[in-house]
Amino acid sequence: MESQKELFIGIDIGGTNTKIGLVDLRGNIISLSSIPTHQFDNPEAYFTSVCNALDAIASQSKKIGKIAGIGIGAPCANPISGIIEDAANISWLNGFNVEVSLSSIYNIPVKLDNDANAAAKGEMIFGGAQTMKEFMVITLGTGLGSGIVSNGRLVYGRHGLAGEIGHTIIVPNGRKCGCGRRGCLETYVSGTGIVRTVAELMADEFQFESELANIPFNKITAKQVAKLAKQGDAIAFKAFEKAGKTLGFALANSVAYFEPQTIFLTGGLTQGKGLLLKHTIKAFEANLLNIYQNEINIQISELPPNNAAVLGAAALVFNMQSPNKPDFQQSENIYS
Amino acid sequence: MESQKELFIGIDIGGTNTKIGLVDLRGNIISLSSIPTHQFDNPEAYFTSVCNALDAIASQSKKIGKIAGIGIGAPCANPISGIIEDAANISWLNGFNVEVSLSSIYNIPVKLDNDANAAAKGEMIFGGAQTMKEFMVITLGTGLGSGIVSNGRLVYGRHGLAGEIGHTIIVPNGRKCGCGRRGCLETYVSGTGIVRTVAELMADEFQFESELANIPFNKITAKQVAKLAKQGDAIAFKAFEKAGKTLGFALANSVAYFEPQTIFLTGGLTQGKGLLLKHTIKAFEANLLNIYQNEINIQISELPPNNAAVLGAAALVFNMQSPNKPDFQQSENIYS
Repeated sequence: MESQKELFIGIDIGGTNTKIGLVDLRGNIISLSSIPTHQFDNPEAYFTSVCNALDAIASQSKKIGKIAGIGIGAPCANPISGIIEDAANISWLNGFNVEVSLSSIYNIPVKLDNDANAAAKGEMIFGGAQTMKEFMVITLGTGLGSGIVSNGRLVYGRHGLAGEIGHTIIVPNGRKCGCGRRGCLETYVSGTGIVRTVAELMADEFQFESELANIPFNKITAKQVAKLAKQGDAIAFKAFEKAGKTLGFALANSVAYFEPQTIFLTGGLTQGKGLLLKHTIKAFEANLLNIYQNEINIQISELPPNNAAVLGAAALVFNMQSPNKPDFQQSENIYS
Repeated sequence: MESQKELFIGIDIGGTNTKIGLVDLRGNIISLSSIPTHQFDNPEAYFTSVCNALDAIASQSKKIGKIAGIGIGAPCANPISGIIEDAANISWLNGFNVEVSLSSIYNIPVKLDNDANAAAKGEMIFGGAQTMKEFMVITLGTGLGSGIVSNGRLVYGRHGLAGEIGHTIIVPNGRKCGCGRRGCLETYVSGTGIVRTVAELMADEFQFESELANIPFNKITAKQVAKLAKQGDAIAFKAFEKAGKTLGFALANSVAYFEPQTIFLTGGLTQGKGLLLKHTIKAFEANLLNIYQNEINIQISELPPNNAAVLGAAALVFNMQSPNKPDFQQSENIYS
């Protein structure tokens, strides 16, 4: 009898959609389905829908291999408690123990973690960090998240709350942050940070040549700023330059804590590759302690951008011990 | 036959003296000898002297137990290369591989690490961190060092260069640092940092009531500032208040990386306990992200100050695998 292929499920819970992928050991995505998270308002109906999708994958996967585990990445997920805490867009999921719920149904290892840690695990298993034991991943989306790997393991902290680099204070008495304090890195380096910098530059330079001067503040997006920067809009370009400067400075300090081999950048803000990266690397090297100079690489994630989150989620259950439990089977759905 | 007691040797290499202690499993110091490091100028003569001291301890220890390993703490020691790198006061020791030299003589595990990491390991084995897997130790002497423990293990980084919190830039374009940059934490929070702050306060306040106004700048010591602060000298008190404020701010940021359970402070600057600690804790809590508030303890090290360095060094060889080698025996000294 041929030995069965080992498969993994990665679930990426986002505020808009939940993506569920069936992934093999090499990171090939065998199947991908999507659930509109935003159409739900309670965990029971949502999880019935997730379980239906999982059942369909389970039945499909039988011919191919055996599912070894389910990994779940979600905003504000706590890897120690197994609970989603304080997620703003999907507050109806807060407190729901998705790990226990799914493992009790499917009898295979289930691991929940926040999306930044999932990104780091994804980079380790499928991406550019496969040979590394010391690296960091910075996720640059609406906010700024971080996953840190030291000695080959994710740094979790005592209660799973480590890796909040976005909330290190980088400018004392700086910009107001959603956390209630001022000057957090995320208020400067993130999608929203870029937009705020545009306004700051408008205030400082008082010029109307930039196309951004024609757009109301609440309509400006980082994506648009990136597009304009590429077209040569001076304000847009400067906004990315400033973000890169601030990020490079912050990352130079983080090196003094961890001495990583590489820092990977991922997320929407990195799509216009050179734009942010060049300025970040320049400021990084300029601010590094001499013993670290020209030793540490900053690069864009090597995961495919569209599937990075699903791959990261699937990677969470790599190298986990499987309990002695029956094979993955279709659920007797506890909510149906 | 009675089973032999397990013993450890801790060597604390300092610029002035090298202390060599025989330590038992509970951290009792059975014997302690000292070698005047400052009287040497080459590694060969120095190590002959160290080996002579070790031989004496070995012969003395035979009645008591079996020596399981030798731990060595030294400034600028690299735990991965096993070499002392760039130590300013004992430059003749730079590049000397003390691990290989000693283990080839004595055939037992030998571990070299920098003094901040040794302090962290000491706290873990003999001090206040015995039940902790996540903590940091900040050493406040002439400079500021740090040893970080995450997931029960010291954070080394890729080349053993992690944990340089003293060289995170805390004030952009701030004070000149010996590392060639400006604004490093160590230029504000350390023995020398306190003295610099005294001068800054003199410049700012231009008053002559403080006794410190009578002393040339190159004669002011942190110890003296601490003594005057306790006696109510306003400038001296403010210097410690400022150091505590800056340290508390920096440590609040470091929590966002690691989420430790406790941060231990050790070294000369902490001797006048309340002086620095109170201001540090106040600024720390004021700057913490809400999820960390009132959860993380800052306290003075629980190791006895006089023997902390020797205990830390001895702790380095705890839980190390002993190779299958003969018992610890007197050396055929390779230099004699």
